Parts: sequence; structure tokens; C-alpha cells
Amino acid sequence: MPSEYRLKRRVHFYETDMAGIVHFSWFFRYMEEAEHAMWREAGLSIVGESGVGWPRVEAAFEFFRPLKFEDEFEVHLRIVGKDARTIRYEGVISREGTRVATGRIAVRCVSNRPGETMRSIDIPAEIDSVFQVAPPAP
Amino acid sequence: MPSEYRLKRRVHFYETDMAGIVHFSWFFRYMEEAEHAMWREAGLSIVGESGVGWPRVEAAFEFFRPLKFEDEFEVHLRIVGKDARTIRYEGVISREGTRVATGRIAVRCVSNRPGETMRSIDIPAEIDSVFQVAPPAP
Amino acid sequence: MPSEYRLKRRVHFYETDMAGIVHFSWFFRYMEEAEHAMWREAGLSIVGESGVGWPRVEAAFEFFRPLKFEDEFEVHLRIVGKDARTIRYEGVISREGTRVATGRIAVRCVSNRPGETMRSIDIPAEIDSVFQVAPPAP
Amino acid sequence: MPSEYRLKRRVHFYETDMAGIVHFSWFFRYMEEAEHAMWREAGLSIVGESGVGWPRVEAAFEFFRPLKFEDEFEVHLRIVGKDARTIRYEGVISREGTRVATGRIAVRCVSNRPGETMRSIDIPAEIDSVFQVAPPAP
Repeated sequence: MPSEYRLKRRVHFYETDMAGIVHFSWFFRYMEEAEHAMWREAGLSIVGESGVGWPRVEAAFEFFRPLKFEDEFEVHLRIVGKDARTIRYEGVISREGTRVATGRIAVRCVSNRPGETMRSIDIPAEIDSVFQVAPPAP
Repeated sequence: MPSEYRLKRRVHFYETDMAGIVHFSWFFRYMEEAEHAMWREAGLSIVGESGVGWPRVEAAFEFFRPLKFEDEFEVHLRIVGKDARTIRYEGVISREGTRVATGRIAVRCVSNRPGETMRSIDIPAEIDSVFQVAPPAP
Repeated sequence: MPSEYRLKRRVHFYETDMAGIVHFSWFFRYMEEAEHAMWREAGLSIVGESGVGWPRVEAAFEFFRPLKFEDEFEVHLRIVGKDARTIRYEGVISREGTRVATGRIAVRCVSNRPGETMRSIDIPAEIDSVFQVAPPAP
Repeated sequence: MPSEYRLKRRVHFYETDMAGIVHFSWFFRYMEEAEHAMWREAGLSIVGESGVGWPRVEAAFEFFRPLKFEDEFEVHLRIVGKDARTIRYEGVISREGTRVATGRIAVRCVSNRPGETMRSIDIPAEIDSVFQVAPPAP
């Protein structure tokens, strides 16, 4: 049962801004990429079940060092919490073994059907049974 | 019947790249913003009718000068062609009266229902009757 | 002396994702837009002084409701903390008076010269004297 | 001497829009990713030489089919023209062997030094000698 994922990635030109570094909004997207890759590795898709969605209810990052164009970096994603309707992830972004930023994202399982208002629902059993909380980081 | 629109806009920080100028991909978004604003001014929305979509089938820009952070610019959008299923726009992006870039976008009216393949359809009469081709630019 | 700013904005098409709502990464950009607009209103630019930058060191949002295409919303930005090298902002994003999301961003003043490593520096006096912490929200 | 490059890529969630497909502005970024990867493969970086930049002077795409979330696709980039100051690329984006879109981008070599206006310059010899025009597509 997957509880973590390591995504390798390189910074694209269009992710930089005029300060010469990656714009901070991209770190949230990097972490989402790792989440969706972890789901794929588990044989699932974040948009796999019709009418079920996973909007973010919390997202936070602390930034320690900049990333620059063509930097190779890693997103180490871990599931750090799970209840009936919510999954909590932590992510550590590092470059050459040095921590660049750490993030936290909480996603809630919702019913998301066209024409209806989103409302939270229990995580479907076939998804809930796949993911587990990771052991504490060493 | 609207045939053109002038959008005023200022460059956001996150639209710049490490070369210190607006990344070229943004010009296509600026032109789309003007298109959607023209539709709103006409009392319509580009996503107004359920199951009807307007994917782009062609998009092109020529770039003459860069835009920089906090530059104020104008998108002058004009309808330059229209047939049963397609609308063609031209856009001139300028700053302080100087031409920065010119674009062309063609959009096709499609049926876009969940679970079905997109296919082109005739522009609905209530939309077709609203927009007309602009007179040639002076 | 400015301590808050209210930005009015409408959701662009390209800010939505396949779930039909604004992708969460955009809320961080909306808040940055409000920050830069507050600086402009104070006669300053976030990139005004050569070699001085303002990278984000923390950024967090809680999301309560989705924003959708063409929604009109407000970003109410407030300075909630300031020390020698850091400014802290809070932002409330609302639509028709209903709170949609709340964010916090901390920015650090750095020396950012080509070829040198970024390092934090004291906020220049001419900037420090302009902004003040807002009174507590009612 | 490289004259073409094949980039494999998967669609990210944040690249989709509310129509359920990749927003057209992303195709221009996909093609730029392939360009920069081709330069890296040749041992170069598009931002390698201080004060030399490569702004786009033309960019165009024709779109035949949509890309969707998690689609795997290929960008087949080819150099189709080169003169003293300009490189012209063509790109074919395909999914499972089916053509999705075709693009053309022209980039001009410029002097881009802080505080100076960009002006076009001859392509440095050490770059010019590396890339060559691809043979016609079969």
C-alpha cells in the first residue's frame, strides 16, 4: 500500500520569473504532480471515478532556497494523515540533497457532478483501502 | 452588433520570465481574455450554452517588442472572419500607442458533452446573430 | 500610510481546470496581484529598487468554496506583521460578500544581484516608512 | 549535429481547463520544453551565455485533436530554418501515433543585458556550429 512517492523533475523556463527563480506558485503544482503520479503508480487516477473530486482545502509551503532554470529537483511526497473524507500530504522539495522547500496539502473527497454544488463525501472504499499513512520521517 | 473590443490590462509579476519580459505564451491568454470580455459585453458567455464549446483550431502571434512587469497595454480585438462553424479574430497588442505584437486566433463551435467526442456544429443562431465581421482596419 | 488593499478581479477561463473551478495555485497569484497593486498605490514597485527582491518565505491558503469562470471576486489584503526584514500579509478572498478562501504570505527583503547568492537584508527605510501593520480585522 | 528532438511528456492536471482538455496556451510551452531539451542534449543551455537571449518572434499552432489529463504525448521538434540571427522550429505533437497539433516557432538571437534595450545579434559561432536544419519530413 503506497504511502509515499519520489518525483524527479527539472525546472522549465516558463516556471521562472523576472527575479530569475521559480515563481513560488509552481511549488504547489510540483507537489500536485507528485500526488497524481503516486495515484497512477497505485493504478488509480485522481479523476478516475465519475462525479468524485479532490479539491484542496489547505495548502502551505515554506521556502528555504530558490530553484532556478534547469535545476533538477525531487519532490518527496508522504501521506501524513487520513480520515473518512480527507487525505493530508507533506512534501519535501530538495535539490542535490539540500532541502529547498517543504509543503503541506490537504484534499477533501467531494461529490462533483455537473449542475450540483460540491459536497464532501466519504472516500470510496476502493481508494481508501489503497493508501495508508506513512511512518514518521526519520 | 459587436465586432471589436479593446481590453486594457497591466502585466502581472508571474507573467514574466527570467529574461525579464512577459513569456510569449501569455499573449495568447491576453487575446483570449479580450475575446471573452467582448462576449460578456454582448451579454453572452463563452461557456454560456451547455454542451457547446469553442476550442481554438489555429493560434498565431508575431512579436515585435517585449512587455515588462507593470506595463500597461491594450488588446484591440477584431472579428475578421466568420462562417457557419468558425470565428476568426485578429488582435493587436500595443503599449503607449506602439505595436508590441499581433495575433490571429480561429475558434470552432463544437458539441462538447461529457463522455462524447467533440464534433464541430453550426454556430447557434442566437450567437451567430450577435457578432459580425469588423470593417477592415484603417 | 497604506496597510491594506482591496483588489477586484474576475476569473479568467485559463485559470479553471477540468474540475470546472479555479485551480488552487491561482489563489496565491491573486494575492500577489493585490500586494503589487498596494505597492503601486503607495507609489512604489515591488521591483523598484535595483538589486532588492522580495521572495516569499511562507505561503498558505485555506479554501472554503470554489471560484468559477467569470466569477467576480475581491482580494482584501492586509499587512499583519512587519519586522526589520519581513512583511506578513493576510488576504481574504470573497465573492458577493461570502468568504471563499483566506491566505497568508510572508515576504523577505533580500539582496538579489546577478551572479550573487540571495541574502536577506533590512527593508530599505524608504519602503519601511511607507507600510504599516493594519489594525486587527473587525 | 542535432537537428531534431523527441520529447515524451504526460499532461498535468493544472494544464487542463473547464472544457476538460489542455488549454491551447500549453502547446507553446510543450514545444519550448522540447527546444530546451534539444539544447541540453547538445551540451548547451538556452540561457547559457550571459547577455544572449532567444525571444520568440513568431509562434503558431494548428490544433486537430484535444489532449486530456494524463494523456501521454510526444513533441517531435525539428529545425526547419536557420539564418545568421534566427532559428525556425517545427513541432508535431502526437498521441499514440495520431497527430494532435502542429506548431512553428521562430526565435531570434538578441543581446539582452540589464538596463539595455534588446537588439538582434548574430548567433554566436559556438551555437551556430552545433545545430543544423533537419532533412525534410518524410
